Amino acid sequence: MEEKQSNLVVAADVTTKRELLALAQKVGPEIALLKTHMDIITDFDWDLIIQLKQLATTHKFLIIEDRKFADIGSVVQLQCRDGMYKCAQWADLVTVHAVCGLESIKALEMVADDPNATLRGILLISQLSCKGNLIDSNYRNQAIAMAQDSNFVIGLIAQESCGDPTLLTFTPGISMSQKGDSLGQQYNSPEHAIHHNGTDLIIVGRAIYNAADPATATQEYRKIAWDAYKNRRLSEPVS
Amino acid sequence: MEEKQSNLVVAADVTTKRELLALAQKVGPEIALLKTHMDIITDFDWDLIIQLKQLATTHKFLIIEDRKFADIGSVVQLQCRDGMYKCAQWADLVTVHAVCGLESIKALEMVADDPNATLRGILLISQLSCKGNLIDSNYRNQAIAMAQDSNFVIGLIAQESCGDPTLLTFTPGISMSQKGDSLGQQYNSPEHAIHHNGTDLIIVGRAIYNAADPATATQEYRKIAWDAYKNRRLSEPVS
Repeated sequence: MEEKQSNLVVAADVTTKRELLALAQKVGPEIALLKTHMDIITDFDWDLIIQLKQLATTHKFLIIEDRKFADIGSVVQLQCRDGMYKCAQWADLVTVHAVCGLESIKALEMVADDPNATLRGILLISQLSCKGNLIDSNYRNQAIAMAQDSNFVIGLIAQESCGDPTLLTFTPGISMSQKGDSLGQQYNSPEHAIHHNGTDLIIVGRAIYNAADPATATQEYRKIAWDAYKNRRLSEPVS
Repeated sequence: MEEKQSNLVVAADVTTKRELLALAQKVGPEIALLKTHMDIITDFDWDLIIQLKQLATTHKFLIIEDRKFADIGSVVQLQCRDGMYKCAQWADLVTVHAVCGLESIKALEMVADDPNATLRGILLISQLSCKGNLIDSNYRNQAIAMAQDSNFVIGLIAQESCGDPTLLTFTPGISMSQKGDSLGQQYNSPEHAIHHNGTDLIIVGRAIYNAADPATATQEYRKIAWDAYKNRRLSEPVS
């Protein structure tokens, strides 16, 4: 983050190999991490992974596969390690729902022990941005406790910080212009997320990949988000 | 169910095309539905789908893809329709977590409108069998209410019936011999699930696909489960 002065994550919700690589090339220099949904890429092949990892090395960003694992331990191990996508071999981080409990996190941590694995941690989902979701304060508190119980969970996907400085907060549903979509998504501005809600990294999707000029939009979001983050950190008491 | 006298679902948690087709061939004549995790099949290709659908037609079973969709509406649409697996084109039912709310269910229902779609409904997860899961009574009640609000949800994945006869209850974590695994899974017997908990369909995994003779094990589970179901129905008041 510090080296690139970026706390920006771009959500690459595109459906073809060509679009994903083009987007990674355009936004790569400005982002800290790229968030993928590899399971929506219609022409996925292993060459896509090789090219994407080359772009990640060139532009120094990490890859989050937003798989939202949500099954029992024995199944998430197979889903993360095997199948067509084998995300343990290329993703740096994966997202996991807290609903299945700590055992599913431990099971994924075991997958990362494989010598071929690139996986180095989990982002646990402790809040959601979509309308009518079922995460209440009890669920959220238990998710936070699970994250604190596991060294493998390095951050939370949440709308606001839980106040634990050892856990990074990643916030999706960020846009400077949109308020929502027709399928229940709801948006916040970068400044609101970082200043008001204490978010560390913002995740921006459609506002960037649907922009007329994604590279320029990425620069704008990076600057606004990094300035907001720096200012908030300056105003915090030294711990 | 009635025609085959079967309320048995086999969970096909195998990782190769050969194993999945061999298992479907062996258990097909005895089961009402086959539950797949297509995303753990390492050598998945479209020919697997074609052969599996032929077996489903021959042996008259439906296919549940246990994808446990758990994302915002715009993403679950792409995950169900696109990517490598395109499960809307071959699965009869898919499983969905309730955590993202009703909008994600509506979004999947829209996918089923496609003329190429085989998808005809959702099983909503209202309880889990794994240790330390975060589903409490409040979450469960909201999940049941979501299922009742949607004609596209035809049943619940749960440990016990919610008492609504319009929703079928499918119960995983069933074994006649095992009590648990090392990754947090916990098991119930078929009779306990059907008699005591009011389950309609039992989902049996390792107890069948790891059996020395899966075909014979399937026959045994089908008979026990169907007898328990018939007996329970006979003892219920006529509505």
